[in-house]
Amino acid sequence: MADIGIGILGGGYMGKAHAVAMSSVGAVFNTALRPRLEMVCASSPESAERYRQSYGFARSTDSWRELVSDPKVEAVVIATPQETHREIALAAFALGKPVLCEKPLGASMEDGDAMVAAAEASGLTNMVGFNYIRTPASQHARQLIANGEIGDITWFRGEHTEDFYADPQAPATWRTSGMSNGTMGDLAPHMINAALALIGPIERVMAEVETVHKTRPGGEVDNDDHAQMMVRFANGAMGSMYFSRIATGRKMGYAYEISGTKGAIRFDQEDQNALWLYRMEGPESERGFRKILTGPAHPDYEPFCQGPGHGTGYQDQIIIEARDFLRAIETGKPVWPTFRDGHEVNRIVAAALASSADENWKNIEDF
Amino acid sequence: MADIGIGILGGGYMGKAHAVAMSSVGAVFNTALRPRLEMVCASSPESAERYRQSYGFARSTDSWRELVSDPKVEAVVIATPQETHREIALAAFALGKPVLCEKPLGASMEDGDAMVAAAEASGLTNMVGFNYIRTPASQHARQLIANGEIGDITWFRGEHTEDFYADPQAPATWRTSGMSNGTMGDLAPHMINAALALIGPIERVMAEVETVHKTRPGGEVDNDDHAQMMVRFANGAMGSMYFSRIATGRKMGYAYEISGTKGAIRFDQEDQNALWLYRMEGPESERGFRKILTGPAHPDYEPFCQGPGHGTGYQDQIIIEARDFLRAIETGKPVWPTFRDGHEVNRIVAAALASSADENWKNIEDF
Amino acid sequence: MADIGIGILGGGYMGKAHAVAMSSVGAVFNTALRPRLEMVCASSPESAERYRQSYGFARSTDSWRELVSDPKVEAVVIATPQETHREIALAAFALGKPVLCEKPLGASMEDGDAMVAAAEASGLTNMVGFNYIRTPASQHARQLIANGEIGDITWFRGEHTEDFYADPQAPATWRTSGMSNGTMGDLAPHMINAALALIGPIERVMAEVETVHKTRPGGEVDNDDHAQMMVRFANGAMGSMYFSRIATGRKMGYAYEISGTKGAIRFDQEDQNALWLYRMEGPESERGFRKILTGPAHPDYEPFCQGPGHGTGYQDQIIIEARDFLRAIETGKPVWPTFRDGHEVNRIVAAALASSADENWKNIEDF
Amino acid sequence: MADIGIGILGGGYMGKAHAVAMSSVGAVFNTALRPRLEMVCASSPESAERYRQSYGFARSTDSWRELVSDPKVEAVVIATPQETHREIALAAFALGKPVLCEKPLGASMEDGDAMVAAAEASGLTNMVGFNYIRTPASQHARQLIANGEIGDITWFRGEHTEDFYADPQAPATWRTSGMSNGTMGDLAPHMINAALALIGPIERVMAEVETVHKTRPGGEVDNDDHAQMMVRFANGAMGSMYFSRIATGRKMGYAYEISGTKGAIRFDQEDQNALWLYRMEGPESERGFRKILTGPAHPDYEPFCQGPGHGTGYQDQIIIEARDFLRAIETGKPVWPTFRDGHEVNRIVAAALASSADENWKNIEDF
Repeated sequence: MADIGIGILGGGYMGKAHAVAMSSVGAVFNTALRPRLEMVCASSPESAERYRQSYGFARSTDSWRELVSDPKVEAVVIATPQETHREIALAAFALGKPVLCEKPLGASMEDGDAMVAAAEASGLTNMVGFNYIRTPASQHARQLIANGEIGDITWFRGEHTEDFYADPQAPATWRTSGMSNGTMGDLAPHMINAALALIGPIERVMAEVETVHKTRPGGEVDNDDHAQMMVRFANGAMGSMYFSRIATGRKMGYAYEISGTKGAIRFDQEDQNALWLYRMEGPESERGFRKILTGPAHPDYEPFCQGPGHGTGYQDQIIIEARDFLRAIETGKPVWPTFRDGHEVNRIVAAALASSADENWKNIEDF
Repeated sequence: MADIGIGILGGGYMGKAHAVAMSSVGAVFNTALRPRLEMVCASSPESAERYRQSYGFARSTDSWRELVSDPKVEAVVIATPQETHREIALAAFALGKPVLCEKPLGASMEDGDAMVAAAEASGLTNMVGFNYIRTPASQHARQLIANGEIGDITWFRGEHTEDFYADPQAPATWRTSGMSNGTMGDLAPHMINAALALIGPIERVMAEVETVHKTRPGGEVDNDDHAQMMVRFANGAMGSMYFSRIATGRKMGYAYEISGTKGAIRFDQEDQNALWLYRMEGPESERGFRKILTGPAHPDYEPFCQGPGHGTGYQDQIIIEARDFLRAIETGKPVWPTFRDGHEVNRIVAAALASSADENWKNIEDF
Repeated sequence: MADIGIGILGGGYMGKAHAVAMSSVGAVFNTALRPRLEMVCASSPESAERYRQSYGFARSTDSWRELVSDPKVEAVVIATPQETHREIALAAFALGKPVLCEKPLGASMEDGDAMVAAAEASGLTNMVGFNYIRTPASQHARQLIANGEIGDITWFRGEHTEDFYADPQAPATWRTSGMSNGTMGDLAPHMINAALALIGPIERVMAEVETVHKTRPGGEVDNDDHAQMMVRFANGAMGSMYFSRIATGRKMGYAYEISGTKGAIRFDQEDQNALWLYRMEGPESERGFRKILTGPAHPDYEPFCQGPGHGTGYQDQIIIEARDFLRAIETGKPVWPTFRDGHEVNRIVAAALASSADENWKNIEDF
Repeated sequence: MADIGIGILGGGYMGKAHAVAMSSVGAVFNTALRPRLEMVCASSPESAERYRQSYGFARSTDSWRELVSDPKVEAVVIATPQETHREIALAAFALGKPVLCEKPLGASMEDGDAMVAAAEASGLTNMVGFNYIRTPASQHARQLIANGEIGDITWFRGEHTEDFYADPQAPATWRTSGMSNGTMGDLAPHMINAALALIGPIERVMAEVETVHKTRPGGEVDNDDHAQMMVRFANGAMGSMYFSRIATGRKMGYAYEISGTKGAIRFDQEDQNALWLYRMEGPESERGFRKILTGPAHPDYEPFCQGPGHGTGYQDQIIIEARDFLRAIETGKPVWPTFRDGHEVNRIVAAALASSADENWKNIEDF
């Protein structure tokens, strides 16, 4: 067992989630590498110091360069705004440090290209923070599908829906400005990543992206409120996805429904400890979707609790992610989703935006 | 109170449903017109006689012309295959008889044009059998939306999904032949009608229609297994619909989810006595989708039971439809959905098929 | 096929339900005996005539004796207040007429004794109106348990909960007066009957019966608002039941949960088309309660609809009951639940009231 | 901010949960006291050392006395078998160290008496580990009831049901021996504590406690498989509780349903992020149980995630508990549930066992 100095850039929503995860991942998973909260970086010395105290880091800074180049920082977690991802990641790789970068990978396709190139040239661990797919339920869904338990996939429906902007009077903020902060940029990547993980590569897309409330108190809105797309997977499955920040009543609607020739699967993150499975077997009179509660029989559940049905939560999926990141560093083996995997998601986002603009199907390979 | 002689064409699935409905609608709703089961028509004298005895008709025949022209038959219910709808309906109108015709209105756009023209020229009661929208829950949903209770509609998702052909080894039958028997022809019209009723006119559509299992034991399949479409409503709402006969695990997935600027509604026919309503009001800590069980406070429930939560069933929605048909005859006032309303649904189906064929958005007004 | 003249006593809630059922049961089930709505009786000539017209009876009367003795009335359905059941039933049996009597069997144990004796002496069809146990889902549950599918039963929890008196300001009416109109008298019998049907005989009971709101606008309340009991079944299973008319939010909480050594079953009438089944088999990772939607594979569903998941409603369970009554008359075979079966339920109610009074366990055989 | 040395006795199920909680509570809640994992004790030096490494403690021991008396151990968490609780707690208090003791408080009433006396004499922080009541949803339920939001309580139904011994062939282990390891000893206390917290003091109880499977592979069973009780609360509410380790299909059935004169609440730990609330207000047509997803608007949720509906898990409720323990130490204010509160639960367990033995109601004040 060895410890590893962690530097986290950003102390807000995701920065805190990673800090908490790094605090407990060792005890939960008995990891070979034990994180040491070395340094946190924020936009001002004051806020950085506040995060340091609150989360328990050894030191703080308002300079990302200082953090990245600090010799005691041995791995870097990027949880800053998308525009900053590229520069930081490239610097970290240049210094030989593994990087876990929050999604989306960068703020543009160019950012992504550069980040993938740097990551692969470095040979270092590189990972994108798609944490939702790491819940025990979604990991189990992946396995069931991969094992052919529900047969050939014929249909996929996914959504990532929330309602934090459902009220037309909710004021304009940084979230209502910039494509990477809109629904396609910020929410869609999670479910697109899930679609790729569960079903496989997407070949083409036909999308509609829309700003419903074009002005809000405090200003104009220049990014999208919701978006839908029809997709075709490489394996032939047909699919549909919907993303929204105005889905009234939905709080964490990261949800999917999958039909196969032998069964079906349903999942909704709002009840993240249940996976619904239907098998086309046995007498008709006893068929039905069964509600499987996650437990020690499912991936990565037992370290959190020996009792089934007791449930994992949002923070736990970040802990699972931290374990995967540490293990990749330890073993030197690539960890899904790599920067390349994350960039593939961005290509689909780019294709969707282009499709919406000229109202035509777009092949992903053209992006 | 007066009685009225009913003739029903077709004694199968829907023919029986209408026969049962006509038997009990008087007692349930205390209708001014009381149906008298006068004559049933089927494809052979033997089956017609069997239906007569079983359902309690006075007479039977294997000639639709005989039924329609019988002087004691004062109103006609058409529950035969789509190809026959046009001829029968036109004959009935020519003889001055009101017609309740099962969906879809005919087997082609030309059929529909002719049927609408004849119906409107006759001035007689004409109605299409979209019974699902008549459940107390869906009627209540319509009222809530019409009253602005969930604000301006921003998003509609509808589906009509079943799984009777989910098994690739299910044999080819009449259902796997002919576009009007496929998913777009047979299942989609119900939910398209619901979309029109709940949200309003549809302006354009972008669709994918697919035969997943092109051969089945016993033959080729020449109609569609499932289909999806993106739609835009005249009021600006964005929408998505999915229709399937291969939706493994789904038995009666006539379901919709609607987001508005003040609330949201969810419904699934598999639990037809529940309507889920979310209101963006009151403290955040108490907001949530509420599961409203249908009861005497909802449209057309009380005649079935004075107790809330006791529930109505499939047969009851046909009884409500029969009441509406009888009332229209009695009062001479048009009854929604008229043939014209049903034909509007067919136009959307036609536009969707065309869209799927050339992969472009289609304006409904062009069909 | 032959017809049979039906006389119904009472035109209110249950009288109407039976009238509608008798109108449609022939068409639904293709019964050998076809009901003819011969006569309806109500408390005044005016109300009787109103019911006659509304439900479609041939004649009306305000004299139960006239109805029972009318030669064209060949079978009698009693849907009048409990105090009247005994006199009417005895007269009907004396005239050789089969009787379907609403629950509870009478207003007292003495009534029940007399009614059982008369019924059995007559050799005529006698049946008590426990309709809820006749839904396809509950029939299926009975079969599963009887077939040992969930093993030996270890636990039963049942409830019949509604909230029509949850509001302390709801006024006193006939319902708040007389033990047979209270929760134990009026609601409990349905679930006690279900317990007997699903699990088997009850040996002893320990109960608490309570009037929570002792005065209401308009008067004193002299019967119970809610009641609970612990029970022991003859097969050794432990059980618990709860009955309430003040169960805020519950509309039709006829619900049960049953644990066995090989599986478990859950049901709630508020979603009467779903039966939840858990089987202790297969890998742990795939176990869960499955939601089985009723369909043609379940008892008595298909005559209502060929499609699974389309659902039956409250009225349909009365139609199933009518079919069973007619079949018993036709075949001369006893039909469960007979008067004796219904009286067994009353004995348990009596034991529960006695137990509550002196706070001790009571053996059912002593009542 | 100051750190505090934590010693944990026991490294199994609950020992690990506390170790993880102590690792992350500081980062999650920004606590004034920051736990330092000082020492872990287990039954052998080898297992203790294994726990030390795995969870990240500084030192390990197989001597509870060594841990308790170690000067760097400033607070003690007891997660060893019940028989050991008393001795350890008394020693800790004698040394002036605060104690968080897992439920049940001890292995007997005498243990409890002694532990309460020692705790109160010491004036030190003493707390019992009823963590389930600390979820955001259950905390919110407590507040709603305390604020009178659902009116006067008329009915409480609680259960703690699991199925780890549902299979009669599951072998005998330490769990099947000793009353404090049976259902009443081990599972019931959680829900009894919840009943007290939600509704208030219990006055009397009538119970049945049963060993269903008296022998299992490997030996005799001398404790209970399931138990039920009827209870009466001091505020007049009637109640029922059920506890089981043989509730087939139930994984974490810590669930309650509460009726009041103005509303109702339902909760089930198997979906721990949902609280169901019914309010008897507004039009009948819109009433229904609403499913409230926990979020920042609910107690102790936001530190785990800023997004509603993202969900907390089992581990998080232990973290909340740790925060409360640390805050009590810091402020010197008592923390619910104290040893006295935990002992009150044991008194109800004792009354229930006595009631079951002689089949009579028992007043809690006699125990």
